[in-house]
Amino acid sequence: MVVGIDKAASAADSVVSSAKKTPTAIPSDSVINLARGDPTMYQPYWRRMGDKCTVVIPGHDLMSYFSDPGNLCWFLMPELDDAIRRLHRVVGNAVVDDDRYIIVGTGSTQLFQAVLFALSSPQNPDTEPLSVVAAAPFYSIKHGNMGMSSFSSHVVGQPLILHGLVPHLVSYPEETEFLCSGLYKWAGDAYSFDKDGAYVELVTSPNNPDGTIREAVANREGGKLIHDLAYYWPQYTPITSKADYDIMLFTFSKATGHAGSRIGWAIVKDKQVAAKMVKYIELSSIGVSKEAQLRAAKILEVIAEDCASSGPDKEENFFEHGHRLMSDRWEKLREVVKRNGVFSLPKYPRDFCNFKGKDTDSSPAFAWLKAKDGLNCDNLLREFKIITRGGPNFGVDSDYTRVSMLSLDEEFNLFLERLAEIKGAANRM
Amino acid sequence: MVVGIDKAASAADSVVSSAKKTPTAIPSDSVINLARGDPTMYQPYWRRMGDKCTVVIPGHDLMSYFSDPGNLCWFLMPELDDAIRRLHRVVGNAVVDDDRYIIVGTGSTQLFQAVLFALSSPQNPDTEPLSVVAAAPFYSIKHGNMGMSSFSSHVVGQPLILHGLVPHLVSYPEETEFLCSGLYKWAGDAYSFDKDGAYVELVTSPNNPDGTIREAVANREGGKLIHDLAYYWPQYTPITSKADYDIMLFTFSKATGHAGSRIGWAIVKDKQVAAKMVKYIELSSIGVSKEAQLRAAKILEVIAEDCASSGPDKEENFFEHGHRLMSDRWEKLREVVKRNGVFSLPKYPRDFCNFKGKDTDSSPAFAWLKAKDGLNCDNLLREFKIITRGGPNFGVDSDYTRVSMLSLDEEFNLFLERLAEIKGAANRM
Repeated sequence: MVVGIDKAASAADSVVSSAKKTPTAIPSDSVINLARGDPTMYQPYWRRMGDKCTVVIPGHDLMSYFSDPGNLCWFLMPELDDAIRRLHRVVGNAVVDDDRYIIVGTGSTQLFQAVLFALSSPQNPDTEPLSVVAAAPFYSIKHGNMGMSSFSSHVVGQPLILHGLVPHLVSYPEETEFLCSGLYKWAGDAYSFDKDGAYVELVTSPNNPDGTIREAVANREGGKLIHDLAYYWPQYTPITSKADYDIMLFTFSKATGHAGSRIGWAIVKDKQVAAKMVKYIELSSIGVSKEAQLRAAKILEVIAEDCASSGPDKEENFFEHGHRLMSDRWEKLREVVKRNGVFSLPKYPRDFCNFKGKDTDSSPAFAWLKAKDGLNCDNLLREFKIITRGGPNFGVDSDYTRVSMLSLDEEFNLFLERLAEIKGAANRM
Repeated sequence: MVVGIDKAASAADSVVSSAKKTPTAIPSDSVINLARGDPTMYQPYWRRMGDKCTVVIPGHDLMSYFSDPGNLCWFLMPELDDAIRRLHRVVGNAVVDDDRYIIVGTGSTQLFQAVLFALSSPQNPDTEPLSVVAAAPFYSIKHGNMGMSSFSSHVVGQPLILHGLVPHLVSYPEETEFLCSGLYKWAGDAYSFDKDGAYVELVTSPNNPDGTIREAVANREGGKLIHDLAYYWPQYTPITSKADYDIMLFTFSKATGHAGSRIGWAIVKDKQVAAKMVKYIELSSIGVSKEAQLRAAKILEVIAEDCASSGPDKEENFFEHGHRLMSDRWEKLREVVKRNGVFSLPKYPRDFCNFKGKDTDSSPAFAWLKAKDGLNCDNLLREFKIITRGGPNFGVDSDYTRVSMLSLDEEFNLFLERLAEIKGAANRM
C-alpha cells in the first residue's frame, strides 16, 4: 500500500505501541494512536495458526543475489510468484494470466516509485517532467497542490525525525517529490488537472482515507494509470470483479497484516514497463529480501489453500475471519456514532461479493469520521486521548479525520468507549 | 557493497548459475561467469554450520512496521543493532561507540542513495546539484565523466533487461544519475575534479575493482566523504585500524556472503545526517524487511561469538576460514599467472592484521587482471569461456579486466585450468 502507511505522530503518542510482540493490558488512561495503519489486528489470527505458517531458514540458504535468472524479474522467487498468482485466482480480485508480469518490491512503496521511473524514463530534455496526479482526498501534507520547491523545503527543510519521534507521514506527494527528480513531479488533485500532455493518475480503490470505490477522473489524452489495490481484498470490500488494469499494486501489509516484511507486488501488462520497474529495483536495492519473499510465499500459499478447500468441517479462512472482525468493528462503531450524535460516517453501497458468494457491506481499513457543526474532529478526539489524522492531511476540512480500524482489540474497544463519552463534551464546546 | 554487485552479462553466460541451492558438477565446456560478485564461495561453510544459524519465524511474528519506536532508526531491530556493534568490536575494523548511529538499509545500495539524499537536501534552488565523485578506477559504464543527459539516455533509453537476461551493471554513476535528481549529480573522477563548492567523494577501501587501500583524493574545500568499507573484513585485507570516518557503509553480502538478504548498514557520526538517511529509507521503502534483519542478527552474532571464544579446541572462525580460502585461491592464481606469462596482477603490501595478530597478505574479492602487450584481456578470456568485466567498465584500458574471486570452488578451479591453457593461444593472437 502506498498511502496510509502513515504512522505515529510522536513517541509521546506511542504509549500504546503495537510494535510489541504480545498484546498487553492497556492502562485506561493511555493515549490510543489510531493515526497510523499498523495492521496489528490480524496478529491473534496468525498466532492461532501455530506452526502452519512458520518458516525455517538454515544459515546456508538464500545466499545468492539471484532468484530466477531466466525470469524478467530475476530477483522474484518462483514460489512467491506462484503463491501470488494462486491467491488472486482463488480470491478472484485480479487477472493474473500467464502473460502478466509479477514484480516484487520492498513494499508497494518501492513499486510505486518503480512505476514512476518506468513511465517517465528515458528523460526527454525537451518536455516537462511527467505530471503525477490523484483525486482528492488522498494522503498529503497540507491543502491544495504542492509545487516542487515549496514541497521540498517543507519535507526536507524541517527537522525530519528527531530522536524519540516515529515517522508520521509517507504520502504520494512526498514519495513523488522527495528526490526532486527531473523525470516526474507531483501535480496535485486529478479533478482540477487541466494540463496537456503526458500524465500519470494514481487510482486507489478502495480509497484511503475514505474507503470509496474509485475510477480514474482526469481522463485526458496522454494519461496513464496506476491502480493501488492495497485494500481490494474480501475483508475490506465486496470483490465485484477481477481487476484487469495495466499496472496494479498490492501489498502483503494490508492483505494479511505482515507490514514488517516489506513485501509488495505489481501485476503489469506491458513488458517494457515491467522491465523498467525491475531496473529501478535493481538500481535502488538490487532486488528484495529473500527471507521476506519466502515467508510471504508461505503465508499466501496457506491462505490460498485454506480458501480453496471445502467441506462441512472447514474452518473459517483468513478472509472470512478478517471480514467478520471488520464487520463487527464497523457495526459497533456505527452504533456508537449513531448514539452520541456528534459524528457521521460515510455510507457504502452493499454489493455482491464473488468471493463470499453473497451480498456484503464494505468495512474499510480506515473510518473517515466527520464531526458535526464544523467541529475540528481530530482535536476533539485528541481531548479524549485518541490520536487520528485530520482532514487537512488529505486536502479537506478539519471536520474530517481518519481513524485506523486495524488496531489490536484492546485499543479498538478503548477507542469505542471514549468515543461514546464524547457527546457531553462536544456540547460544551 | 555499492559497486561490484554487477552481475551476469546474459542468460547465455549464466550456464553456471550460482543461484542454485546446491552445487552441481560443472560440465567442462560450460561458460564460467566471473563478471559478477555473487559471493557463493561461503555457502559450504554455512552449510557445515548446520542448525547453528537457522532462524525460525512463526506466522504471527515480525508483523508491525515498527522495530524500535524510540530509536532514531525506528525500523532497525535492536538485536541487529547489537550484533553489528558487537561484530565490529570483535573484529576491530570500525569504531562503533554508543554515540554512533547505526542505520540499516535494503543492501548498502539503498544506503548509498540515502547518504546522497542526506547530504544534498533540502534542495537549494540557487546552487548547483551536489557533485558526486570517486577516484578511478571505479565501476562505471564507459570511459570518462558522464554528464546527466548522455548518461540517462544510455541507461534508460536502451532495452534494459530483456527477458532471459540478468542484470549486468549496478554502479555508482548509474545509482547517482538514474532518477535525474535535482539534488545531486555524478561528476566523474575525483582525481580530475576541480569545481568549487560542495561535493561528495566516495572512497571505496579496499577498492573495487583493484583491491587497493584508498584515501580521499579530491581534498578540496566543501567536500564530504562516504567510505564504502564493504571489503574491510579480515578475509580480504589486513585490519590495520578501527575505521573512524563520518559515514561508513558495510554490507552483509560481502561480509558473510548473504547477498540474497539485502542487508547493509551505515555507521554515522552526525545525528542530522542519520535522521535524513532514515527519512530516505522511510520514503523509499518504509523500513527494511524484519525477516532479513533477524537472520542477519543471528548470523553476525554467531560469527562474533565464534571470534570472541578461545581455547585449544577452538574451531576456525568464519574470518579465519574465509582468509584461508582466499589466500589459497590467490596463491594458486598467482602461480598460474606467473607460469603462463600472459597476465600480471597487482601486488599488495603485506601488513599487520590486528584481528589475526600477525602480518598477512591482502586477498581481495576481485582479481584485477592485466594482459601483457596491450591484449584485450576480457576478450581473450571470453575465448576460453570465462566471462569477466573489462577495464573500460571502470574507466581504464581494455588490457585490464576484473575477475570475481568469490565463486564456488568448482567454478574457480575450472577458471584456473582454463587460464593455464591460455599461453599458447595468446601467442597466436
